[in-house]
Amino acid sequence: MKRSAPAAKRRQSVPQVRFRMRITHGDDIAVGPGKVALLEAIEQTGSITAAAKSLDMSYRRAWLLLDELNRSLREPAVDCSQGGRRGGGSALTEVGRQLVALYRRIELTAETECRGDIRKLLSLLTR
Amino acid sequence: MKRSAPAAKRRQSVPQVRFRMRITHGDDIAVGPGKVALLEAIEQTGSITAAAKSLDMSYRRAWLLLDELNRSLREPAVDCSQGGRRGGGSALTEVGRQLVALYRRIELTAETECRGDIRKLLSLLTR
Repeated sequence: MKRSAPAAKRRQSVPQVRFRMRITHGDDIAVGPGKVALLEAIEQTGSITAAAKSLDMSYRRAWLLLDELNRSLREPAVDCSQGGRRGGGSALTEVGRQLVALYRRIELTAETECRGDIRKLLSLLTR
Repeated sequence: MKRSAPAAKRRQSVPQVRFRMRITHGDDIAVGPGKVALLEAIEQTGSITAAAKSLDMSYRRAWLLLDELNRSLREPAVDCSQGGRRGGGSALTEVGRQLVALYRRIELTAETECRGDIRKLLSLLTR
């Protein structure tokens, strides 16, 4: 196969490994990197509006993601009782905090335990 | 947050965990699940045309994915020397076989090593 590009840009960069876990539930993605990032942003900013903004996401999109997530969980991940829909603060529930912590620990474990094979795989790539 | 859907469909299904690794290189995804599946299909079918068909993918799309992959690798993953562009057989090179084997072993290791935390995460979901 022809190696058609000069690839100068690629050669300047170092390959990045990204591990992503998704939990699908029927046709939905119940838990994935987008929802986890949104929960983290809510924890940091204290509101869905600010979290959505920090992720360059519409409020509507954030709300739909949270709705889908909450419906996949035994208990909601976000407590919006501190304000109205566009109003005051939102916070993660205990379940929301557990979900974020487990998800990030799983990613870290995967990267750590697979380090040797990942290094071998990266050795196949151009630098 | 309102839990707005009946979710009958979801309740019939069991959550599925999918681990996916992507290696990005500059702006490209050098290695990811789509490319690995394509290599496996080429190994099984012995041709890019048949592999693309088996994945419900256009020949053009398959060829572009392989071109992008090959440009990311020190050596090409696919040997097309056995036929013309639309012609005879294609086979994985030793590098192609190594790439597939490492990628699948990494996924398996990740799922195995994270089993405990994945179980905890799944316990937060509705069934």
